[in-house]
Amino acid sequence: MMDRVPVLKLGDILIVSIQIDLQDQSVLALQEDLADQVVATGARGVIIDITAVEIVDSFIGRMLATIAAISRMLDAETVVVGMRPAVAITLVELGLSLGGVRTALNLEKGVALLNHLDGAQIVTAAQ
Amino acid sequence: MMDRVPVLKLGDILIVSIQIDLQDQSVLALQEDLADQVVATGARGVIIDITAVEIVDSFIGRMLATIAAISRMLDAETVVVGMRPAVAITLVELGLSLGGVRTALNLEKGVALLNHLDGAQIVTAAQ
Repeated sequence: MMDRVPVLKLGDILIVSIQIDLQDQSVLALQEDLADQVVATGARGVIIDITAVEIVDSFIGRMLATIAAISRMLDAETVVVGMRPAVAITLVELGLSLGGVRTALNLEKGVALLNHLDGAQIVTAAQ
Repeated sequence: MMDRVPVLKLGDILIVSIQIDLQDQSVLALQEDLADQVVATGARGVIIDITAVEIVDSFIGRMLATIAAISRMLDAETVVVGMRPAVAITLVELGLSLGGVRTALNLEKGVALLNHLDGAQIVTAAQ
């Protein structure tokens, strides 16, 4: 199984959970799938969950920045959620910035951030 | 990277997207993580996305049924979403039932189903 990273849709938001070790091929596929889905669904926000990612190198960092840039061009904001403390430390130590990618602690805070950015309610989570 | 399948929380719902080839070890870890999270968060629903799963065998089928049984004991309903047509066909051909696990077409419909089951609105997706 597992050729492509699935893109989930909830209201105006697309959710991607990165779990597999991404190779060049699958990164390109994910960027394409996300761009297609943003256009097809008219999504206003993209949330990328990296809870499962233990090591962020420049390759992953670039991918996140590229996805954010593509989405922005298609009128959707990107928020990266679930960054582990160790990953944040590594990023800073390596001097890697995420190129203007917004981050939030977890999925709920990411959704709240997108709602705030968009001005309108996209998805509301009660309690 | 990738030791455990991440469990995302949105409102009263926990969301798990199965992407890696699960071995015995990781299935046990996922069942434990989910049970812990259901109790810790008081979640009322668990959504398991299998969009990325191309082949469902009796091993995966049993895992889904077990997760649903554990969650139900902890007062949370489980919905499996994103089943591919080929997977549904295989399940029927193999005579595998998912042991009372509810299914929905996609994440949005899964959320709607959980809201319906619960009587109250858990998460609302506008538009």
